[in-house]
Amino acid sequence: VNAEIICVGTELLLGDVVNTNSSYISKELSKLGINVYFTTVVGDNVARLEACLNLARTRSDIIITTGGLGPTVDDLTKETVAEILGIQMVLDEKALEMMTSFFDKLGRPMSPNNRKQAFVPEGSVVLYNDLGTAPGCMIMHEEKTYIILPGPPREMRHLFEKYVYPYYSKLSNEIIVSHVMRVMGIGESSMEAKVKDLIDAYENPTIAPYAVSGESYLRITAKAHSKGEADKLIIPVLDKLKERLGISVYGIDIPAIEHCVFNCLNLSEKKIAFAESCTGGLLAKRMTDIPGSSEVFNMGLVTYSNEAKMKLLGVKKDTLDKFGAVSYETAKEMVLGLSHVSGADICVSVTGIAGPGGGTEEKPVGLAYIGVYDGRRLWIKRSFWPKEREQVRLFTANMAFDMVRKMLITAR
Amino acid sequence: VNAEIICVGTELLLGDVVNTNSSYISKELSKLGINVYFTTVVGDNVARLEACLNLARTRSDIIITTGGLGPTVDDLTKETVAEILGIQMVLDEKALEMMTSFFDKLGRPMSPNNRKQAFVPEGSVVLYNDLGTAPGCMIMHEEKTYIILPGPPREMRHLFEKYVYPYYSKLSNEIIVSHVMRVMGIGESSMEAKVKDLIDAYENPTIAPYAVSGESYLRITAKAHSKGEADKLIIPVLDKLKERLGISVYGIDIPAIEHCVFNCLNLSEKKIAFAESCTGGLLAKRMTDIPGSSEVFNMGLVTYSNEAKMKLLGVKKDTLDKFGAVSYETAKEMVLGLSHVSGADICVSVTGIAGPGGGTEEKPVGLAYIGVYDGRRLWIKRSFWPKEREQVRLFTANMAFDMVRKMLITAR
Repeated sequence: VNAEIICVGTELLLGDVVNTNSSYISKELSKLGINVYFTTVVGDNVARLEACLNLARTRSDIIITTGGLGPTVDDLTKETVAEILGIQMVLDEKALEMMTSFFDKLGRPMSPNNRKQAFVPEGSVVLYNDLGTAPGCMIMHEEKTYIILPGPPREMRHLFEKYVYPYYSKLSNEIIVSHVMRVMGIGESSMEAKVKDLIDAYENPTIAPYAVSGESYLRITAKAHSKGEADKLIIPVLDKLKERLGISVYGIDIPAIEHCVFNCLNLSEKKIAFAESCTGGLLAKRMTDIPGSSEVFNMGLVTYSNEAKMKLLGVKKDTLDKFGAVSYETAKEMVLGLSHVSGADICVSVTGIAGPGGGTEEKPVGLAYIGVYDGRRLWIKRSFWPKEREQVRLFTANMAFDMVRKMLITAR
Repeated sequence: VNAEIICVGTELLLGDVVNTNSSYISKELSKLGINVYFTTVVGDNVARLEACLNLARTRSDIIITTGGLGPTVDDLTKETVAEILGIQMVLDEKALEMMTSFFDKLGRPMSPNNRKQAFVPEGSVVLYNDLGTAPGCMIMHEEKTYIILPGPPREMRHLFEKYVYPYYSKLSNEIIVSHVMRVMGIGESSMEAKVKDLIDAYENPTIAPYAVSGESYLRITAKAHSKGEADKLIIPVLDKLKERLGISVYGIDIPAIEHCVFNCLNLSEKKIAFAESCTGGLLAKRMTDIPGSSEVFNMGLVTYSNEAKMKLLGVKKDTLDKFGAVSYETAKEMVLGLSHVSGADICVSVTGIAGPGGGTEEKPVGLAYIGVYDGRRLWIKRSFWPKEREQVRLFTANMAFDMVRKMLITAR
């Protein structure tokens, strides 16, 4: 069974609104073993919408539309579907009633235009909307299913969860389970090279490599009749991949590396402190993005200037003069100074050149030194990402978190 | 002239990545008077990509693809376009050279797979990519233009700006110029109410209100034959809007409020320091996102715990015991303590409850106190955004920056 999504709305085409509906629907359907092969965005234009619907009928089993259910004259999705299928539009009394009471609750008068929203193609299953005025509908016609959903993401998701997912979940005897293995410290192509034979060898589960903003990951996807059965297929593959990729693997189904650091700190009941120069608070910000981080976060010092490095961390003027702010020696004094000031179990320092200015031939934009100290072990690493400011900061922060992770998991 | 966008990538179909490329391209093309009528997302599958391309050729003048230019066997966009047009793939020496030096700089070996990325359809204009390994290309064929761009948004935008926009901008005789007026401190509907008559009265330029993640703005858009002519239409309207909205307007075409703060600090040659509790480094991070911020940034202290507040800022234990960490009194002692420690010209403190935990009836999630002090004036403001953690932090930080802005522009 395959599906196709048609998102209707000139605002999507104009780029004023980013289309999150199609990724949501694709993700949900993939859990049910339904593949989405195409997603199309089309403006509020009947002829072009008709063309999309007619094409979709030739190649997809399930056609899902979002948007174009509003009260204005531009909103014509239901009408267009009915038209191409040769079905009449009829008033749904319950939808009208719900809409009337919706406006009563808001204390606003219902505009005559809204009445049009209570009409649905004859014989369709009405998807009653508790969060807005536009009901959706489902139509079975010549072995194809048409699912018409509203455009606002909250309402669309509500109807999808309430009607569409349960419907297909009952029908389906196959489910798809997918896990993401996250990797840090090696690029996509090196990662792929290490596991190429496994990628080629496996068909269920499949293994697919990805790279997003400087991080690599592998998606492992199995088809099975139950979650338990799928996991039975997946777990040995995860083990093999872990064996190949070793310490580079920082987590499975984890949103970002700081979550892994957070978990390690939590488990070992340790607290962390940061002294940041070029990352300027990014490490602290990312750590405290996580709810409950107060349990593991000691303090953060953003020592951007030399004065701040001296005043707050006790970095020596001599060191700054002799080696510069971006140096092994400064990173070391920063992290040792931070340990002294904070008393945290694990301390991190970062000093580098985020750019675009400030680079020299010897010390180019993208260079950074990262220090990590747990009171016993002191690691200083040179990192170099010749990228734009935002990337330099992001990748340097990733590397700092990765060093912390490695120190924590190798602690005795 | 109309265009169509085909975004290639299974990760887009699966919903792993939200498609921001198509909205970016649509927006940029609309400035040039080029309408995008269809956007399609298709997986890494040659047959289905071929079907999309063949359909696009029948209905659109410009066909733009994004994605599928990577080094892996799945990446087949260029090859597929060449195939349907009956064009050979040839090695582009310059692209290969750029790629080789890219890997040299990174200090990483170039994998043999990467070589494939330097091949382009014969006779195409190569779009050299300074930010990644995948060059794009442009092909004119039977009165249609095919523009093949990489998938990573940064690289795609880079090539679009460098080659595609200038190309069509030269061809076009009508341009669309658009300015965004940013507003802080009043909601979308209040903003709209204050300028409703102007929105209704003007047709060229048009005035459109928007609200995105807690901020309101107005987009003013004019059509004209030249930039100068467009600005002549727009400037008087901007002046009228500013008159109505007063101090709420913090900038025009400015990406975020911290840029306004940065400019004010720069102009007055002042330095800022932050003491952050619930925002956990977000203020420092946002300030230092800006290139050149070292000129205006003194230091940042992330004092998440009570201990850190006492140790680094000298907040009294009594104050914390009596009033709590989230209080007018603590915000005051934080900002005065920070001024003492840092000696910065303007100091900011934030203490609040970001959630999801930690809220009480008296002090609910979303409550924060913000202190701003310039050595003479001390402002403390209570802020309350009953939202999710990320929003609480974002909106609280926005408000803190807005207070700084107001203090700076009212300085005598």
